Amino acid sequence: MCELLAMSANVPTDICFSFSGLLRRGGDTGPHRDGWGLTFYEGKGCRSFKDPEPSYQSRIAKLLEQYPIKSEIVIGHIRQANRGGVRLENTHPFERELGGRMWTFAHNGQLSNYKDLPLGCFQPVGNTDSEFAFCYLMGRLKQRYANGPRDPAAFARFVAKQADMFRAKGVYNMLLSNGRWLFAYCSTKLHWITRRAPFGTATLLDNDWEIDFAKETTPNDVVSVVATQPLTKDEDWHVMSPGQWVLFKEGEVIASN
Amino acid sequence: MCELLAMSANVPTDICFSFSGLLRRGGDTGPHRDGWGLTFYEGKGCRSFKDPEPSYQSRIAKLLEQYPIKSEIVIGHIRQANRGGVRLENTHPFERELGGRMWTFAHNGQLSNYKDLPLGCFQPVGNTDSEFAFCYLMGRLKQRYANGPRDPAAFARFVAKQADMFRAKGVYNMLLSNGRWLFAYCSTKLHWITRRAPFGTATLLDNDWEIDFAKETTPNDVVSVVATQPLTKDEDWHVMSPGQWVLFKEGEVIASN
Repeated sequence: MCELLAMSANVPTDICFSFSGLLRRGGDTGPHRDGWGLTFYEGKGCRSFKDPEPSYQSRIAKLLEQYPIKSEIVIGHIRQANRGGVRLENTHPFERELGGRMWTFAHNGQLSNYKDLPLGCFQPVGNTDSEFAFCYLMGRLKQRYANGPRDPAAFARFVAKQADMFRAKGVYNMLLSNGRWLFAYCSTKLHWITRRAPFGTATLLDNDWEIDFAKETTPNDVVSVVATQPLTKDEDWHVMSPGQWVLFKEGEVIASN
Repeated sequence: MCELLAMSANVPTDICFSFSGLLRRGGDTGPHRDGWGLTFYEGKGCRSFKDPEPSYQSRIAKLLEQYPIKSEIVIGHIRQANRGGVRLENTHPFERELGGRMWTFAHNGQLSNYKDLPLGCFQPVGNTDSEFAFCYLMGRLKQRYANGPRDPAAFARFVAKQADMFRAKGVYNMLLSNGRWLFAYCSTKLHWITRRAPFGTATLLDNDWEIDFAKETTPNDVVSVVATQPLTKDEDWHVMSPGQWVLFKEGEVIASN
């Protein structure tokens, strides 16, 4: 089981606190030793940091834990390999361009009987079930929205339909973003939380770091975080059930089922 | 004028030495204050590090200068913005997938009268002439090689033909790689060098770092470096002339005009 992490915010926000919790699961408090990746959107641009090294040993991860990159959307993943070797090309998040936006995808789970699905324009570089599923999804999106989707709710329903199909082929917890929207789909395990004023304090489950969000934010900030398992011990996370999905924009839920 | 940097090697090799020289040109010894990026291929996988910050101030650049990522192909770029604002989405190298490989592109120069060129499958995310030219090139490559090119010399001639067309529209020094081949095209200024046994020493022009390659390599290593301007003061770099191109594979020149 891999660990997923995502953030959607209405102002550029750093993810150091949440990433710090996740990092410990990468081979220290967790078994996820097979690489990690983090994609930051800054406006329309995005940059990904990836390492096939365990995250708790990675010098790049260490830098990112301390270096506050301010971002509106983040997608992160810590890998425990099942399908596909431990190599850079198999390290999430995966990226493809559609309609002049970079799309980013991370998956937790395992799929069977997927290789006969017809791929369109997009081909996998590595050999994971995850990247295959992403390429299939992007091909379907391109078929339907040649220049990229415009209506977020219709887009989310379309992606959820593909996700239901993959859930029938195994386990398919997933995150998808184009830098504007963040889509999260639960197949077996996924949690989310929205933080807004009045902000309180929270303590990480994995390394006891306590943060006072009131000191780090302004009263208008709205920040949602999605994670495989709750990252903090003193907040109420929404527990998603199998087949549930949520679409975030600027920190707020704008559609769900 | 931006600075280009690339490497092709027959064994995974780090680029710390060359990158260290280039870094100083990013706002310190040079005027290139508008971001930088570096893409490392490791097998079929690749990872890019990008920053819209000047490279000589960038904490990520500082890490990469000291952290020896071993790679067979590297493409790097330090930007002095002309067309397109200083934003992450305008920061080179640019990436797109074709035929199950990630393709990476960096450009130095400025183009005019290019916006009417028909784009195919690939759309720019930012608003630089460089990314537009890359998307056009990738569209042409996809048209001709739906599953990616197989014959390196034919591929290089095809890309050179597109490059000649862009050179007629301005300045178009460029680097392109799919992780197997490295293509370099000179429009106004580009240099390259191949290092092989017997290895000697070299001293960086920009910060006086001297390296003894004999200590860093094995006798079978072959490493080629491409740069806008020579990076070292005690080696003979090949000076490319306008319209010249070189294709490298595993450190060796495998085609040129």
